[in-house]
Amino acid sequence: MSLVTNPPKKVVLAYSGGLDTSIILKWLQTEFGCEVVTFTADLGQGEELGPARDKALQLGIKEENIFIDDLREDFVRDYVFPMFRANTVYEGVYLLGTSIARPLISKRQIEIAEMVGADAVCHGATGKGNDQVRFELGYYALNPDIRVIAPWRDWEFKSRTHLLEFAEKHGIPVPMDKRGEAPFSVDANMLHTSSEGKALEDPGEVAPEFVFQRTVSPEEAPDTPEEITVGFERGDAVSINGETLSPASLLTKLNELGRKHGIGRLDLLENRFVGMKSRGIYETPGGTILLAAHRGIEQITLDRGAAHLKDELMPRYAELIYNGFWWSPEREMLQAAIDASQGMVTGEVRLKLYKGHVHLLARTSPYSLYSEAHVTFEDDAGAYDQKDAEGFIKLNALRLRLLASRDKKAGRNL
Amino acid sequence: MSLVTNPPKKVVLAYSGGLDTSIILKWLQTEFGCEVVTFTADLGQGEELGPARDKALQLGIKEENIFIDDLREDFVRDYVFPMFRANTVYEGVYLLGTSIARPLISKRQIEIAEMVGADAVCHGATGKGNDQVRFELGYYALNPDIRVIAPWRDWEFKSRTHLLEFAEKHGIPVPMDKRGEAPFSVDANMLHTSSEGKALEDPGEVAPEFVFQRTVSPEEAPDTPEEITVGFERGDAVSINGETLSPASLLTKLNELGRKHGIGRLDLLENRFVGMKSRGIYETPGGTILLAAHRGIEQITLDRGAAHLKDELMPRYAELIYNGFWWSPEREMLQAAIDASQGMVTGEVRLKLYKGHVHLLARTSPYSLYSEAHVTFEDDAGAYDQKDAEGFIKLNALRLRLLASRDKKAGRNL
Amino acid sequence: MSLVTNPPKKVVLAYSGGLDTSIILKWLQTEFGCEVVTFTADLGQGEELGPARDKALQLGIKEENIFIDDLREDFVRDYVFPMFRANTVYEGVYLLGTSIARPLISKRQIEIAEMVGADAVCHGATGKGNDQVRFELGYYALNPDIRVIAPWRDWEFKSRTHLLEFAEKHGIPVPMDKRGEAPFSVDANMLHTSSEGKALEDPGEVAPEFVFQRTVSPEEAPDTPEEITVGFERGDAVSINGETLSPASLLTKLNELGRKHGIGRLDLLENRFVGMKSRGIYETPGGTILLAAHRGIEQITLDRGAAHLKDELMPRYAELIYNGFWWSPEREMLQAAIDASQGMVTGEVRLKLYKGHVHLLARTSPYSLYSEAHVTFEDDAGAYDQKDAEGFIKLNALRLRLLASRDKKAGRNL
Amino acid sequence: MSLVTNPPKKVVLAYSGGLDTSIILKWLQTEFGCEVVTFTADLGQGEELGPARDKALQLGIKEENIFIDDLREDFVRDYVFPMFRANTVYEGVYLLGTSIARPLISKRQIEIAEMVGADAVCHGATGKGNDQVRFELGYYALNPDIRVIAPWRDWEFKSRTHLLEFAEKHGIPVPMDKRGEAPFSVDANMLHTSSEGKALEDPGEVAPEFVFQRTVSPEEAPDTPEEITVGFERGDAVSINGETLSPASLLTKLNELGRKHGIGRLDLLENRFVGMKSRGIYETPGGTILLAAHRGIEQITLDRGAAHLKDELMPRYAELIYNGFWWSPEREMLQAAIDASQGMVTGEVRLKLYKGHVHLLARTSPYSLYSEAHVTFEDDAGAYDQKDAEGFIKLNALRLRLLASRDKKAGRNL
Repeated sequence: MSLVTNPPKKVVLAYSGGLDTSIILKWLQTEFGCEVVTFTADLGQGEELGPARDKALQLGIKEENIFIDDLREDFVRDYVFPMFRANTVYEGVYLLGTSIARPLISKRQIEIAEMVGADAVCHGATGKGNDQVRFELGYYALNPDIRVIAPWRDWEFKSRTHLLEFAEKHGIPVPMDKRGEAPFSVDANMLHTSSEGKALEDPGEVAPEFVFQRTVSPEEAPDTPEEITVGFERGDAVSINGETLSPASLLTKLNELGRKHGIGRLDLLENRFVGMKSRGIYETPGGTILLAAHRGIEQITLDRGAAHLKDELMPRYAELIYNGFWWSPEREMLQAAIDASQGMVTGEVRLKLYKGHVHLLARTSPYSLYSEAHVTFEDDAGAYDQKDAEGFIKLNALRLRLLASRDKKAGRNL
Repeated sequence: MSLVTNPPKKVVLAYSGGLDTSIILKWLQTEFGCEVVTFTADLGQGEELGPARDKALQLGIKEENIFIDDLREDFVRDYVFPMFRANTVYEGVYLLGTSIARPLISKRQIEIAEMVGADAVCHGATGKGNDQVRFELGYYALNPDIRVIAPWRDWEFKSRTHLLEFAEKHGIPVPMDKRGEAPFSVDANMLHTSSEGKALEDPGEVAPEFVFQRTVSPEEAPDTPEEITVGFERGDAVSINGETLSPASLLTKLNELGRKHGIGRLDLLENRFVGMKSRGIYETPGGTILLAAHRGIEQITLDRGAAHLKDELMPRYAELIYNGFWWSPEREMLQAAIDASQGMVTGEVRLKLYKGHVHLLARTSPYSLYSEAHVTFEDDAGAYDQKDAEGFIKLNALRLRLLASRDKKAGRNL
Repeated sequence: MSLVTNPPKKVVLAYSGGLDTSIILKWLQTEFGCEVVTFTADLGQGEELGPARDKALQLGIKEENIFIDDLREDFVRDYVFPMFRANTVYEGVYLLGTSIARPLISKRQIEIAEMVGADAVCHGATGKGNDQVRFELGYYALNPDIRVIAPWRDWEFKSRTHLLEFAEKHGIPVPMDKRGEAPFSVDANMLHTSSEGKALEDPGEVAPEFVFQRTVSPEEAPDTPEEITVGFERGDAVSINGETLSPASLLTKLNELGRKHGIGRLDLLENRFVGMKSRGIYETPGGTILLAAHRGIEQITLDRGAAHLKDELMPRYAELIYNGFWWSPEREMLQAAIDASQGMVTGEVRLKLYKGHVHLLARTSPYSLYSEAHVTFEDDAGAYDQKDAEGFIKLNALRLRLLASRDKKAGRNL
Repeated sequence: MSLVTNPPKKVVLAYSGGLDTSIILKWLQTEFGCEVVTFTADLGQGEELGPARDKALQLGIKEENIFIDDLREDFVRDYVFPMFRANTVYEGVYLLGTSIARPLISKRQIEIAEMVGADAVCHGATGKGNDQVRFELGYYALNPDIRVIAPWRDWEFKSRTHLLEFAEKHGIPVPMDKRGEAPFSVDANMLHTSSEGKALEDPGEVAPEFVFQRTVSPEEAPDTPEEITVGFERGDAVSINGETLSPASLLTKLNELGRKHGIGRLDLLENRFVGMKSRGIYETPGGTILLAAHRGIEQITLDRGAAHLKDELMPRYAELIYNGFWWSPEREMLQAAIDASQGMVTGEVRLKLYKGHVHLLARTSPYSLYSEAHVTFEDDAGAYDQKDAEGFIKLNALRLRLLASRDKKAGRNL
């Protein structure tokens, strides 16, 4: 449907209160006569939400059309924690801080659309990135009939200058520091901060220190290591140094610890779902600690069969989240498998934080699968019969021996 | 076949020159009248091999029955490097330093057995560990008719005291420091040093600093970071800071760098193939740097499809190596797939080494797949049409929308 | 523990009432003085269980030590159906009729052992096959402290003659037809009949017709095809031709249909878990129809993402069942994933049965995901915008184009 | 680029000689003034290619711009056979007859474009199907700078009537039977014939018999079974009943056999890459026999590790081919793995063909891995020590026992 000939009547806009989404807001109002509903979420990005409300009012949004939600606990409990149950990393290293926030925003936006009777939703992601995909797959999966507006793909503005002209014409305040171009683009939430673009576009150039916003540099981190204990119940972190914390409080605390010790910096040249490579600088201070801790508690509580299956499923699971398929049956199937493994993942992990690195030191669990009786170099009082190993090896070797005999007969060399 | 009633005539023993394999040597000679052939390999474990020769002679081994091979280049080129092409880690973190050495030892031992006409091979691994499996699967896969002797499973010695009595009775020198029990057990080669057992058996206790032998502690590492450049050709590292090096020389150099900066320490509670969990302290200084570097060069040279398939295959590949199936058709199949991806994995990676952590800083390649033209936030001169994203999203969403329509009709809630 | 010096006191024996398990029964009683508890299960193998009770009594088993259970509904509902939800085939073709019965027998045997206070369980599987593994992995997984007796691995009988002598000495009736050797060995339950060994041992020889017991030969099947409708609810078959049936009744009915039309014969040279290849002749009449029907109903109700993930997980799932790991965390994880996909797998499938083949003809569902509006060659009234395909292709192609540009520049040819 | 303002100069058109591609030909000439180069491939679709040449000439194509290639041997040798090495089926059952032809057509079209200096290629696939994706991914992967024209997505014709008007206006002969609408749409090559659309669009309706073109109905197939022997070398079929045949001749012969016996009919409701489900009727007579035969020869020559890895990789490999990613690095990686397993897949398979079904009867190989000595129920002369099974089971069970102990202690019930 054409925006011009057949504009939506009421649009729920994912609204940050910043310049870009304010321009989108006005563009929807003035170009198409839409009634705009703003949705601003607190996902722990570290900004006050009051100003977003003020700005929306100032741009003519009705009080009842302004939705501002503190979703921090939902975010950590229902998205971050389930993802960490799988020890999820994309392309070997990336903790998916941006990707995992999108499904929650999509879901809430669709819920609001249904509440207010809106016929469209709108986001401010560009046409080159993954976020447009993640938002829109979420919208469509949760409401197949919703209409989606993606201004960066649709509008006619050719340059930043045009955008600023539009802003001024419609009385949108343009902060001084937005007049020039930002040296790079930033996204943040409680799990991470990502920086990309412009100054960072050459992956052969070292990223400048001023890019980093969530962590001190390892060199400036304390010279003394800090040891902490993270407690887990059924696969999720529940305490730090013995203090029970809600999901969001716990991640906040880990973020402080990670920031202080310079932990969680990552320079990645990654593969986007839309087909090109892009370079990102990621800071995931608390998440990096959490991953090390979760791996530690699984070491002592998870059976080998479960652990190895999880390792094999993880790359696919990470890819699904990265590509925006959180709300897909296959992600739900994988989640069911992963969650089915976490019932006994309970206990405590001891970690050392020091100048950019997390060192796993020790782990204990009331549900430990570790048996000193079996593994000991000392007398094991019959727990394990070494003679069993011979049969184990013999039958594991049988097919290889039959193969070697065949290959030898056939003249195949080593 | 019974060792007693039907002993082998000639046995190739994997011989370190240490107390344990010297006892095995004598046990084979005196209990079963075997002719013993010793095989001692230099895999970069950092010990002189001269003493092993002297000791073998002293224990009555004939000059022509002593084989001492410097296998360092073979080890790195044909085993370590192929494994690193897959970014291989076991259980998320372990670089498989012990596992990857066993196939080469097995292979050489079988070759010597065929050369000297031996009817059996013998190793000194215990009946509780993975190494017995790795050695023996290798033996059988390379010579299906070979006879395998595993003294730790077979002999009647009930305690260390009995072993020492046997040693003294047969004139095997027992060093003062071997009279008591070692506080833990060590295995080393050019890739890593592992420590396990005894003092380390409680995974809830922090490993004492004296366990670490290959790396300074991060706290004692230099206060100034060191930046290095690692060059790659077709998936394998070939140079450091512009200096071309042979595989073994390169890994030696990386080991020195890693040692100095406290890099590559790992405390792992892992799942053994024989069924129990065991705790290992691993130091893989050079390998840890190499893994970060290889990931970096793949970021810029590997297509997404290849990269993600590699990520999905890796856990299985790692498990095969850990479990001792290097010489299996399925490992060879996976290697063929992995190697088929490395033809363009050529270029340079810049890394920062600092107090226990490797930071990837930058990567360049003559075969770069990164296209600034496509990813740029600036005008891309038509390289990428943002309108394409709409169709891409729409068709990716189609099945999810059909699903959502169906589920809504069926009354399934969010 | 030695059977001789330290025999178990009370043993639960998986007892068929046949000659072999009767000999085992007596052997336990007479050689070790065990109190024997017999457990005989009706899994639809098509034999009366009354004689098993009589024989047990006759061999001196106390009334309260005889357990005879009709497990047919449990078998189909809790084992066969969950397995079919995954469209499970081993090595591309085998429906796992033997493997899937073992976990239930193990479970019931352990339950009885706990009920009667037995300290051991015993089965009659040989030392070369998979069944010993399946039984014993089940026992150990359900009771880690249970003692397992496997007479075929443990006893001293060297030949069939010795066994028959033992039988006669202890008053075990030996049927005339068991005096000679059976031409092959048979296992049966409601899902299938397997035949292997002896007359079938050469996989290059065509299996003789007399081997087949559960199906008429396709050549002798009716010349007129028969069409049937199978109804499904949430992934499980619930009706045939509109008649609702319990799980076991439904499979019985499908078996009759399959038998009549010569459906479900399989000649397979398979890979055993214990390392060698073995040839089996399998007849799975009802299961073969059920598999075709389940695939049919999934075609119309399952999303592509779910369907393809299931296809990828299936071979591993099949291997776990074949190898005896039903009672393992990784099988449970996979089951959780599979079951999570089946909520809407409801509807009807139309099949044609004819001379050995099942033809899928049609499928309908109240939860159909098929949209004629989208797929039609006719005017689709805007359901699908063909222009979207261009963007979809363009972005899917982007990485391949970047790759081709790079490769061309690097001189790599097609 | 706009077709109107910036039309290509010279276009290589995939030309069948039929009405639709003749209209495309004229449309390119008359609307955009393109020089058209026609490419017509013989992939064994069973039509004469002479008329395509005549028609092209008649429509004004210059002699030197007409390319007619017999690609039958290339097709079977380089595409069909490699795919069958993997026992490839999509969604459990489909032999990918259409998908596997597209990469070859794309490749040849790009080669011709380079030869004649064309700046664009053009195909006649619609905007709703998979074929547009397969063609275009191939084009772009082989020439990243090529321009692609997809008339069905681009032109303005709104109905069949408009198309026919255009044809008549430009002197394109319209056969009588094309004046009305075809009752369904057909694609054919040497591997299969597919029929879809219109009369077949309701997947709940049984497909009428007249749809089937490549096979007699099972009911009308001979009442006497036919036995054949297929010989393999290194994974590929090379002979039938002892007669060595070229790849295309062999598949032709298998097609005749399959046709006669009603083999290879499939009714599938499948998931298209573009997101909707679609129903296809497929006839793959020779391929169905070939798949059964290849599975048979692998049973006797392939090690378990290789066989099971192949089974796990296959669904992904099938999906890649179905989705059009033949020319992708990940397909090439999987092919490398698959091909690495086929070196000894040599021997003969005996099959029975009867009324729609292929029965595997027997298999032999000079490289057989089957060992009657190991599997026999008779005395095996020590080839296999049944005592080994105890250790094998014990160590496989160890982790399950530790788990059961833990779970019991934790109060988790069965």
